[in-house]
Amino acid sequence: MLALGARARAASKVMAMATRGDKDRALRAIASKLEASIEPLRQANAKDLQAGKDNGLDAALLDRLELTETGIAAMAEGCRQVAALQDPIGEVNDLSYRPSGIQVGKMRVPLGVIGIIYESRPNVTVDAAILCLKSGNATILRGGSEAIHSNMAVAKCVSEALAESGLPADAVQVVETTDREAVGQLITMPDFVDVIVPRGGKGLIERISRDASVPVIKHLDGICHVYIDKDADYDKAMAIAVNSKTHRYGVCNAMETLLVHQAYAEKIMVPLCEQYRAKGVELRGCDRSIALLDGSGVSIAQAVETDWQTEYLAPILSIRVVDGFDQAVEHIASYSSDHTESIVTENVTTSRKFIQQVDSSSVIVNASTRFADGFEYGLGAEIGISTDKLHARGPVGLEGLTSQKYIVYGDGHIRQ
Amino acid sequence: MLALGARARAASKVMAMATRGDKDRALRAIASKLEASIEPLRQANAKDLQAGKDNGLDAALLDRLELTETGIAAMAEGCRQVAALQDPIGEVNDLSYRPSGIQVGKMRVPLGVIGIIYESRPNVTVDAAILCLKSGNATILRGGSEAIHSNMAVAKCVSEALAESGLPADAVQVVETTDREAVGQLITMPDFVDVIVPRGGKGLIERISRDASVPVIKHLDGICHVYIDKDADYDKAMAIAVNSKTHRYGVCNAMETLLVHQAYAEKIMVPLCEQYRAKGVELRGCDRSIALLDGSGVSIAQAVETDWQTEYLAPILSIRVVDGFDQAVEHIASYSSDHTESIVTENVTTSRKFIQQVDSSSVIVNASTRFADGFEYGLGAEIGISTDKLHARGPVGLEGLTSQKYIVYGDGHIRQ
Repeated sequence: MLALGARARAASKVMAMATRGDKDRALRAIASKLEASIEPLRQANAKDLQAGKDNGLDAALLDRLELTETGIAAMAEGCRQVAALQDPIGEVNDLSYRPSGIQVGKMRVPLGVIGIIYESRPNVTVDAAILCLKSGNATILRGGSEAIHSNMAVAKCVSEALAESGLPADAVQVVETTDREAVGQLITMPDFVDVIVPRGGKGLIERISRDASVPVIKHLDGICHVYIDKDADYDKAMAIAVNSKTHRYGVCNAMETLLVHQAYAEKIMVPLCEQYRAKGVELRGCDRSIALLDGSGVSIAQAVETDWQTEYLAPILSIRVVDGFDQAVEHIASYSSDHTESIVTENVTTSRKFIQQVDSSSVIVNASTRFADGFEYGLGAEIGISTDKLHARGPVGLEGLTSQKYIVYGDGHIRQ
Repeated sequence: MLALGARARAASKVMAMATRGDKDRALRAIASKLEASIEPLRQANAKDLQAGKDNGLDAALLDRLELTETGIAAMAEGCRQVAALQDPIGEVNDLSYRPSGIQVGKMRVPLGVIGIIYESRPNVTVDAAILCLKSGNATILRGGSEAIHSNMAVAKCVSEALAESGLPADAVQVVETTDREAVGQLITMPDFVDVIVPRGGKGLIERISRDASVPVIKHLDGICHVYIDKDADYDKAMAIAVNSKTHRYGVCNAMETLLVHQAYAEKIMVPLCEQYRAKGVELRGCDRSIALLDGSGVSIAQAVETDWQTEYLAPILSIRVVDGFDQAVEHIASYSSDHTESIVTENVTTSRKFIQQVDSSSVIVNASTRFADGFEYGLGAEIGISTDKLHARGPVGLEGLTSQKYIVYGDGHIRQ
């Protein structure tokens, strides 16, 4: 791992100086190489799929592991989209004169070497590699052992394309060993790695955050809330509450808990829960929720304390009727993972209070929690959604993989 | 420490909602309280000074420990200056519509609770407290044991002023115990502390970075370089090289190593080193430097490997004659602490290469390294100079003590 780290560090110095033209050419070369390698990619993937079946992986995991022809085409398309994004490196902001006569500004620069630790999906290998490449960083990728053959096959395409484009092949390296100790080493070599981005389950991320001696951009779970206020518009509330939960279940920006103002609950609970039932969503509610649904024909279980603390990532929703705005905000402060919360209200003062008082990476007024996403926010792509407060918060795109240094121009200026 | 942390966390929630008016009133109240407390402050400080003498502290340390009447007036003035700064909290940037119809922007918010660990100077207690206060954070301050009476006396002024202004007195707490274990606890309670800012010697900062389980904004040493290029202007080179070293010795943005292009060395070495001699600066040089000064009457010792690695913080300078630009940049890459480097050149291409290739928190063209400073850069004040790449890099002012969350407005928008 140290040798691999040293190669990454050397490559990072070349990448930091690479022009936008170099980088975009490499990105397009990766796209072509992936498209020309459908057969070898599928063959490598077949080995992983077979091993997964032999080891009894469940259908959902096997599904995420599979590299289809469409999936490969999507990876190639992703490369071309990132090539089309503006290059953040070298951007100078806020350049202005100071009373002393010096001119001070900030220039955007790469972070250096980024270590990415992720679980089974092989497309992350490309997504992560190309964002780091465009932002002038070198990357060390450590995927899950279930996907090792697929990841190595993808990595081969990337390295070959880099070399053909005149950029260092070591700018993107995939850790070949599936040895668990490799992760321990990767997160404790600050001389060679500047930041770690873990993508995966809560357990993985907590373990890495605890053990790492380099900074970690954490992507913890999304226990996201929608609060339907007493001044909500009925149609908006229905649409947002349904979309936030049911648009997709296994994503971190899906709603897990619905909070409803008591004065509004009587009007909306039955028709809304009928929609959830129609979509097969299992409901777990507080006493008042259960009372309101009594006799409606919609079944709802008693929510227990752990329900408010759980990211279901599944067609399960917990519902609480709250006394009012303050209790909703308190509930969010107690149980949210600080990822994304949305309020539905027509009252401008209430919306301003929600924006001010809720301390999450995305705070939304009258829109679905599902919008909390790098593409939807206009970042062009994302490496994940940070629940950290330092450095990058919320969807992390190219900018989150960079830093800014101060630049100063003088004409012989000295301090008096 | 846990109880103290819990109080800080509670206070941070009130501070996050405090208006600019509240905060500025508190800052001005602190100023008045300090001015009205010259006697008790001096008495508390006298105890520390006596204890310091009894424990054999050297003159420089005793000097930094002393709270003079002028020093107290400067602290009060600092409070009023921070009150005059714009409030960063609640600032919304980049609010714009996306193709989906939602409107997305970023709002600046406090980090929460900031733990500051520092050594002997009691004025840091006020400087750190007021920057955290203005940026809507709560602070836990842990000063050096040598200054405990002074720090507690300053803390009393701050708490009383906060309470009188209607803000929570717990928004600024000084750790009363001088027990070393308190630091260990402070840096490992992520539930109550969001970030640690250590200010002090390299040993302290490295120990804290190693042991902390919360993010650390590091302020490591400043091994700063000035490179005099072959295309340097003579007067600028002389002024910048002298000012960068001799304006103040004990500061992190002072030059520690001078690099001179071989083609320029013959012209400038003797007159420049005569100036250093006149100011009592001890010189240590490479073979070529020594040869150039031979017979000039200026004495220079042989520099050894550790000289290039040392932040002297003293009237000592190491000098190396380099083959050219590339060797200067290589030397900086090998030995710099990534704090501040300056080039003296009239050549625009060379200056552009220096800005691009040198990876330090401040990169300067034709000005003294002494400008790398929060006040000089227009931040209004600084809590230190970060040598980290993540989050805050270079001088850290109010903005470095904040984060940004995404805010989203819709009119019932859902993901399709």
